[in-house]
Amino acid sequence: MSKSNCSDCTCRLANEVGQLKAIVNAQSRTLAKLVRQMKEGCKKDEEAKESTLCGLNPCLKCLQPDILYHLGLNTETTDFPKVFGDVRFVCMGGTPGRMENFAYYVMQEIGLKINAATKLRNISEAGQRFSLFKVGPVLCASHGMGCPSISILLHELIKMMYHAKCKDPVFIRIGTSGGIGVEPGTVIISSEAIDGRLNPAHEILVHGASVQHASQLDESLADEIKMCHDPCKDSYEAIIGRTLCAHDFYEGQSRLDGAFCEYTPEMKKSYLETLQSQQVKNIEMESLAFAALTSRANIRGAVVCVAILNRLNGDQIKTPHDVLSKWEKRPQELVARYIRKVLYHNDDDDESEQPEDEAEAGAGGAGDTQKAPAEEAE
Amino acid sequence: MSKSNCSDCTCRLANEVGQLKAIVNAQSRTLAKLVRQMKEGCKKDEEAKESTLCGLNPCLKCLQPDILYHLGLNTETTDFPKVFGDVRFVCMGGTPGRMENFAYYVMQEIGLKINAATKLRNISEAGQRFSLFKVGPVLCASHGMGCPSISILLHELIKMMYHAKCKDPVFIRIGTSGGIGVEPGTVIISSEAIDGRLNPAHEILVHGASVQHASQLDESLADEIKMCHDPCKDSYEAIIGRTLCAHDFYEGQSRLDGAFCEYTPEMKKSYLETLQSQQVKNIEMESLAFAALTSRANIRGAVVCVAILNRLNGDQIKTPHDVLSKWEKRPQELVARYIRKVLYHNDDDDESEQPEDEAEAGAGGAGDTQKAPAEEAE
Repeated sequence: MSKSNCSDCTCRLANEVGQLKAIVNAQSRTLAKLVRQMKEGCKKDEEAKESTLCGLNPCLKCLQPDILYHLGLNTETTDFPKVFGDVRFVCMGGTPGRMENFAYYVMQEIGLKINAATKLRNISEAGQRFSLFKVGPVLCASHGMGCPSISILLHELIKMMYHAKCKDPVFIRIGTSGGIGVEPGTVIISSEAIDGRLNPAHEILVHGASVQHASQLDESLADEIKMCHDPCKDSYEAIIGRTLCAHDFYEGQSRLDGAFCEYTPEMKKSYLETLQSQQVKNIEMESLAFAALTSRANIRGAVVCVAILNRLNGDQIKTPHDVLSKWEKRPQELVARYIRKVLYHNDDDDESEQPEDEAEAGAGGAGDTQKAPAEEAE
Repeated sequence: MSKSNCSDCTCRLANEVGQLKAIVNAQSRTLAKLVRQMKEGCKKDEEAKESTLCGLNPCLKCLQPDILYHLGLNTETTDFPKVFGDVRFVCMGGTPGRMENFAYYVMQEIGLKINAATKLRNISEAGQRFSLFKVGPVLCASHGMGCPSISILLHELIKMMYHAKCKDPVFIRIGTSGGIGVEPGTVIISSEAIDGRLNPAHEILVHGASVQHASQLDESLADEIKMCHDPCKDSYEAIIGRTLCAHDFYEGQSRLDGAFCEYTPEMKKSYLETLQSQQVKNIEMESLAFAALTSRANIRGAVVCVAILNRLNGDQIKTPHDVLSKWEKRPQELVARYIRKVLYHNDDDDESEQPEDEAEAGAGGAGDTQKAPAEEAE
């Protein structure tokens, strides 16, 4: 292992403390799970046959087949438990290209390989809307822009988890955002998603009536991802903070450079300063629907975005393309480290569930794959 | 010209009446324009140097350069008036693939050609979000799903029209939708866009406060597009009706097959029947933002969608892929006929504006192009 450039031991100790805390948390969860199982008289075997998701549409089991229209998949022509049953992480981001790159990157980071004569296939190509790649236990999906777009993806991915009988999948959105008072390039892990009025709720209209769903995110998951940041080695900051979710890029984010702008620079300044005083660290466009839909299904969810500008200093994104590309990789790096840590560092945590986890790169049964080495992450 | 299969002369006469009405409308506009010019003392020459759009952000002229981030274009590296100044029609639809196909289709329909050794380029590839193709005076863009996504596209396309000094561009969304009490395969041209509460307004949050923008569409444009439907030859119906715009595909449209469903089939039935009684003909997800943003800029806008199912009969889209593909072409056919008609049928209507319109297929100056034949459309 190469020697760290950081001469300050305090920094290393702080990092170790963080890692130990994560292990303590993981062990606490295992203990709680075991106690629960003992109390319930070891019903685990029967339970394991169904997905662990809660609160879903009771009619899902009646849909034969269930057509996931925008994913171009249906339960009649695809054996969901076989193809997707091993999924433990569902990562999503805006563009197809970024998520394809992430799929290859996470494959390398978790030690998987595919046959050199093959490449990852967009499993959702037939749907023509989203891209979807599978790397062993990791699904990587593009979600487009805005809450309506990501809500379609989430409805269909949650149905996929249900039909595939997935166990405790973790959903993570990785993306870009406008920072509020933070250095461009900083990674912000959302503590909660709030709307333009600073309410932590996602509003939908059902039969013409407003229905509000709490836009909670999993605090411990945010902490665990933050622990994967190494303040000594990483040349950027990673912070936890509130994320404002807007429904448009220009007026909803108080930009002065949209096609329309009916407010003054002073009104913009005042609004952004109010956000800053309320601990809002960034603005993006999908976290409300992401947080609301994952928490409704009892799925642990996190939003990890890099700030590509500081909105207190301007609206237009003038950073060169190569710098933006470097910044966009930062949330991917943290999330890949987190996945690697969970897969290998916490193996004892769920060995009773997946003792022979055949982690494949690519969709189920997709040819020449190689098992990940059972080495420690760090 | 091949003889029509329709033996009923009434049908042909009705069609002719429709075409004559469209000509009368076009002539009325020309007369009104001439009268206006005479009244204003023939200021036309000076005015022609700027775009005809209204109500835009007064700061646009100060943005040097203006970066259209999601289109991957900016006014410093692209000469907007040169490349986009001839645009008269901006057509948009959900997926990149559909809009690329439409670009080639409209090229053929308006009699343009590109060098056989070249292909149309996605001008917005660098932005990684939308696809954008240019075929002479027609821009073809993908808009993703939902109002937030199309609103980003529209802000940037409207800014493009402004910088390129385009004259009276017409914006048309072509897409798919769920029909309400209509035969699947029917084309619905929207008379207006309404939200889930049946209000004809698009709500945005600006500085945390609700701002409502009227979601008007151009009635005469809807009529002109409807006139391009030939009830004798076309094997489907084309109707004008109200379009409900939802912000999600499942709960917002009262589907029973989403990941979550907290209402009964009876409540769904009752809601859809209410919609039907209010002359709502279809549900889609972009018309509110489309109508609000185009009408704010004084752009004539139309929404032309095919119904791919009748929601009164179900939720899941079970129609085979080849049938859906055929249906998806119907709005494209009508819009291509409309464009062809305006370009050639109404040539005398604006000969003073564009006497030597060098309609090129592809972006400005993109090689070996051929001028469209000056023949009549029909």
